[in-house]
Formats: sequence, C-alpha cells, structure tokens
Amino acid sequence: MTTETTSPDSVRDRHWEPSYASRAARLQASEIRELLKLLELPDIISFAGGIPDPDLFPKDAVREAYGSALGDDGQAGRILQYSISEGDPQLRVWIAGHMASKGVACTAENILITSGSQQALEFLGKLLLSPSDTALVTAPTYLGALQAFSASEPVYDQLQPAMGNRTASSYHEAATAAGGAVKLAYAVPDFANPTGETLTLEGRQTLLSMARELDIPIIEDAAYAALRYDGDDIAPVQALDVAETGSIDASRVIYCGTFSKVFTPGLRVGWICASRPIIHRLTLIKQASDLNSAAINQAVMRHLAETRFDDQVAQARRHYRIKRDTMLAALKKYMPSGTHWTEPEGGLFVWVTLAPSINTSDLLKRSVADAGVAFVPGHAFFADGSGTNTLRLSFSLPDVQTIDRGIEKLAGLI
Amino acid sequence: MTTETTSPDSVRDRHWEPSYASRAARLQASEIRELLKLLELPDIISFAGGIPDPDLFPKDAVREAYGSALGDDGQAGRILQYSISEGDPQLRVWIAGHMASKGVACTAENILITSGSQQALEFLGKLLLSPSDTALVTAPTYLGALQAFSASEPVYDQLQPAMGNRTASSYHEAATAAGGAVKLAYAVPDFANPTGETLTLEGRQTLLSMARELDIPIIEDAAYAALRYDGDDIAPVQALDVAETGSIDASRVIYCGTFSKVFTPGLRVGWICASRPIIHRLTLIKQASDLNSAAINQAVMRHLAETRFDDQVAQARRHYRIKRDTMLAALKKYMPSGTHWTEPEGGLFVWVTLAPSINTSDLLKRSVADAGVAFVPGHAFFADGSGTNTLRLSFSLPDVQTIDRGIEKLAGLI
Repeated sequence: MTTETTSPDSVRDRHWEPSYASRAARLQASEIRELLKLLELPDIISFAGGIPDPDLFPKDAVREAYGSALGDDGQAGRILQYSISEGDPQLRVWIAGHMASKGVACTAENILITSGSQQALEFLGKLLLSPSDTALVTAPTYLGALQAFSASEPVYDQLQPAMGNRTASSYHEAATAAGGAVKLAYAVPDFANPTGETLTLEGRQTLLSMARELDIPIIEDAAYAALRYDGDDIAPVQALDVAETGSIDASRVIYCGTFSKVFTPGLRVGWICASRPIIHRLTLIKQASDLNSAAINQAVMRHLAETRFDDQVAQARRHYRIKRDTMLAALKKYMPSGTHWTEPEGGLFVWVTLAPSINTSDLLKRSVADAGVAFVPGHAFFADGSGTNTLRLSFSLPDVQTIDRGIEKLAGLI
Repeated sequence: MTTETTSPDSVRDRHWEPSYASRAARLQASEIRELLKLLELPDIISFAGGIPDPDLFPKDAVREAYGSALGDDGQAGRILQYSISEGDPQLRVWIAGHMASKGVACTAENILITSGSQQALEFLGKLLLSPSDTALVTAPTYLGALQAFSASEPVYDQLQPAMGNRTASSYHEAATAAGGAVKLAYAVPDFANPTGETLTLEGRQTLLSMARELDIPIIEDAAYAALRYDGDDIAPVQALDVAETGSIDASRVIYCGTFSKVFTPGLRVGWICASRPIIHRLTLIKQASDLNSAAINQAVMRHLAETRFDDQVAQARRHYRIKRDTMLAALKKYMPSGTHWTEPEGGLFVWVTLAPSINTSDLLKRSVADAGVAFVPGHAFFADGSGTNTLRLSFSLPDVQTIDRGIEKLAGLI
C-alpha cells in the first residue's frame, strides 16, 4: 500500500506499509515510557518513572564482576557464546534457594531466566491467552502487564481480590459472553505498581480460592516484594498454594521475580518460578523468542546475588524508606483537603486520588509547564481508561529536599 | 486440571496445568537446540550447531569495553538503568552508516535494536501474522524462523525465489483457501542457513517483483552476510528495493542484521532496518516484550563496532575460509558417489543430500554412537517435515584436522 499524502512530515510523503496482524491495532506507546523522556529535561522534578535510584547500583561490584566473569579466555569463550534457553544453571540454583527461603521449596528445574519480568509477563500472555480469552487484572494495574498481555488480544475483567460482589461464576459467564474463557488472574500482591498497596494474607487466600474455583493460574508479580520498609513480610501467594497443594509442581501460581529493583535493571535479569510442565513450555517460548538471555549478564548477576543480595536489600530498604517517609510527610503538609493517598509499606509508589472534577492528564500539562513537576496520570493504569482523577507518584529518584519541594509545588496547583 | 497418573516421573505424579493458549500446541523443542547438548559430551566431533568459533571472540576488547563503559560512576549509572526501547542512539547511528555502505541510505530512526536477530524474527511474526495468515518460506529454511513465526499460528507456503511454476496469484489463492492472506516472504539471501546457498542478483529481483505483485513485505535475514569467502558481494534485497523506490521509507524490505556471527552472540545485539512507520510499531512491540535490550551490552557492542568491525570481519573471513575449504575437500575425498553437497561462498554451512533411501535422523543416531560425529538432520528445516535424506554440516567450530577426520568417519557410515 503506497500512500501519498500532503502531510508536512516527510515520513508520510511517500511510504509503504504492510498489512499488519490484527494485534497491531492494539499497540500503543506507554504514556510512562514517553514520560521518561521528560527526565531528559533540565530542572524537571520527576515523580513519574518508577525506576530505581542509580545511587543504589553496586557499580564497583558490577565492574569487578564483569572483569572476573571475563577473567580467563576459556570462561570468556563460554559466556560470550550462545547458551541454554533455561538460563545459567548456577543462577537458577541460587534463585531456587531464594524461593525456598520464601516458603516455596523448588529446584532449578522450576526456574526460567527471563530478560526482566516484563518478558516474563509477555511469555505468560503467549502461553495462556488466545484472542478473546479473559485476563483478570486489578483496576488499576501495572501498565506494562496490560501491554504484555494485549499482544495476545485478550479482553480484561476486573479482579477484585476483596471480591466485592463478583463470584467465580460471574467471571466465567462474562468471559463466555466475550467469546473465550477466563485464563489467568494477574496480581502484584506486594506494594503494587501503581498503588503501593499490599494484599493481606486473607486477601491472598481469597484470591487463591477464587482461582481454584475458576481452575485458572495466578500470575504473582513480585517485582517490589523485597522492598518492605515497615511491618512483617506476608507469604507469597505461591507459598500459600504450595503449602496447600504440597509441591511447586502441583501449584497454580506462577511467580515472576526480578533483580531490577534491588540491584540494577540494566542487566535485564528476571525469573519465573512455576511447576516443571509450565517451565518446560515457557522454555520453548524463550527459545523461539530470543534463544537465551545474555550469559555474561547472568554470570554477573549470579555473582552479585551470591555475594551481596541481603546487604543490597538492606541498603535499598534504608535508602527508600527515608524517601517514602519524606513524601508521605510532604503530602500531609501540603495537599488540600479532599485529596487522598495510599501509605505504602514498601515499593516505590504512592497513589493519589483527587476530587472527581480534576483531570490529571490536564493537571500534568500545567504541572510540567508551571511547576516543573512530572507524575503519571492514573488513567493509564486502568484497562478501561477510568481513574481520570488519580495519579501515581514515585519517590525513588529525587532526593529528600526535592521530594518536599516537588510535592509543595504540585499541591499548589490543585 | 489436577492429574494423577502412574508415571514414574515424579513431575507427572501430581501436577497442575493450566488451559493453554491455542498457539501452545505448536511449541516444539528445536532439534538443533537439543543437539547443542551433544557438544557437552567429551570427544564428540560436532558439525551440528551453527555457532561461531569462540576463538574468534575479541575477548580482550570485550573485557576492556566493559571496563571502559562502566568507567565513571555517572556513566555506569546511566548504562545500568532502564533505557529507551529503540536502543542506544549512537549504536543506531553506527548501524545506519553500516547500512548506507551496503546501499541502504537511512538514519538512526530506521533502526531498532533487538536481542539478537531471533527476537527480530519473533517481533516481525507478531507485527504481521494473524492466525491462518500465510508466511512464504523457502524449503528448507532457518528453523528458528519457523519457531519465531509459529507463535503467531500462520500457515506456510513454499517460497521459490527461482519461482518454479508458482505465480503470485497461486500464492494468493492458496492463502485465501487457508483462511488468511499472504503476509510476508522470508528469505536468507546470503549463505543461507541451512543450505549455504546465495540468491543471485536475478533471483533477488524476481523475489522483489513477486513481493510487489502480492504487495507484501520481504524479511531479509542477513545473519551471515558479512562472512563471504569468495566472489563479489551481491546487493542486499533492501538496497535493490531502495534503489527502485527511492527511499528506505518507501521500501517493503525489512532487513534483520546481527553482530552475533562476526563478534559474539553472547551480548545479544541485533537490529532491524526498515521504514520509519514499521520501526515505530516494532518499537512498541519491543516495549511490550522486554522494555529494552541491556544498555550496557549495547554500549560495549557500539565500542567494538566503532573500533574494529572491518578488522574483525576480515579475520573471521580468513578463519572460516580455511575451515570451509577443508570441509569441501574432505567431502570430495571421502563421500561415496550419489552424495551431493552445496559449495557455499560464505557462511557456516554445507548442505548434504544423500540417496533418497537414507533417513538422516537414523543416521545421526548411528553417527553419534559409532563414529562420535554429530550433525543436524535436514528435515527439521522443512516446514512440512520433508527432506529426510538431507543433513546440515557446520564447519565453524572444529579445527581443520577434526573436520577432515569427522567427515571421513561420517562418510564411512554412508
């Protein structure tokens, strides 16, 4: 299809485009990823990207780990070669031990290495969703999960871990009416992106009961689980299911973990922990998708995990706890009445709900132009585009003085 | 679905599996990837994996490049962070220059970085193929392309660059009968995997004419294009189309390149060069699939490309030319009459056709057990599973003495 238009943009002047797959119509630029470009602007105070603070990256240790991994020519030859799709065997052993410490007894055969947990979500969409199948997601939910799943052209229904008035049969009926079946429930139980909220133990049990009734898998996205600043850890949904069913291979929970928030997102190393039949199929998906994640980065991450995981987690908790406290104090100090926000026990995010009349997309434009403050409008996190009076704040990147000043400026616009 | 079986394999004793997407039924382990495990066996002579010789990896340069990329804390902070989905801007500038040297004038906006060219192929399947659409592939073709495309559940029809008796309208009619449309043609014009054959200039023009008549894109997989040992370069199909249409943005050819065969596959850095509207959509697919390829690996590859691409190509050509010559001489010396093989001008592969009565899967079992020699049975490269009397030999990994001895042993079994 060659098209001639009068658009001033030369890309449109004469170009050819193929006939795309039907899923291509659902491809949309992430508002957040576009917002990341604001970070390039000088003097902007960004509460937008939920990205880790580079001050926490263990740079010296990374530098040494690359040097050591490439140390002798034989080893360098191996880690610069193609490698197995499952991922570095020793890294998978470390992860299996880590999962066991969380109540999920498993072996390296239950672990697949992925290029970050975004790739894990995309693989799980591929594994589970045919067009018109239903994925249950919270409202709001992690935007990247919607993008990952949408490539498989599902419909979304609203997961309500507290259940509300939704029963398993109501989900089943809605999915049938939409032309498919309920195929998965996706949740971020700990310090969720975008709300910062944590699912209680009771909520986790309710979610499991509902998944059992529907006979569907639960995708447990644990991206932020290590970053707890107050209170006690709550068992992963996967641990609760393993305790009930007796083994990881009998569990319906698929756990997605990542080193991105604790160490660095730059090496692109995450993992899936699940039953062996599921890991086997996901390994075939990995093989078809990109053969394997870079062996050298896996070797470096293994070294970091083996030598300093606990220390790094402790340091990250201390570092972000102060920032979270600063942001909550600033919100309390500056925000007008009628504004509500979550008080997360961990993670990187605070979720703010404004008066229903305020559109946060409009607010963002004013905020960037007049106050030099960026955040993410909340509607991006709703599969149905609602939540227009909500916004997500991340406290991960700015220093404490900047957090206080940024919230003061933002509050002045509301 | 909880299943109780009497299988001795404990994974089957009590496990739960979800209801999978329809595409999951097409997931198959690659025979080649499984064969790579043979490389672990001591004393095996492997002509199986088409993997580059680690003796060629520029290990010292890689070591220095990681050290330098992580050199100061500010830069280390940047390259260990999330980064843009399009890929490293400076690397894309280098690649655009490289493409221009091949007759494809373009800019960094025409380039997307992928995690190897396997990911490029998977993205293109996602972009172009809905279930029951037709992909045109040669017989035989690159097995990884079949795996990448199959996630999108297409049907395959046989691309015949020399056209044979197939017309554009016969492809169109077959695709309609299969319930979709012809959506792409995939070819490896230079030193193809698995045959080693190269498409002539005339064949490239014929392919382009056919694609124009069908109004479909051509995916040009140039994985081996730099590895020419004899004869003159033939222009990429994309360069021919750009010459005809006047610009990359008007071209229907989507070029997949990679650093894996020239430098190292371990950093997982490949690229797609295409019109800007196509690159824009592929960037959204990249974002949804894994956010971005590791920035640190891209920075290292940029350094390698900028400082030593030509030298590295020259060295690889010298190195592999000798191995190819050795293998062709050994085939001539040892193979019984009635055996035919290709004489590639480049790449890593020789394709052997035996008497029709010989099944090469059976031969492989004998060959590994009795002669300690591995290769890939050819039927894996046919979408329809034919080619049972063919096999693929790679000369990339063994040294010249081993090539000669291995071919002698293999010939002794035929």
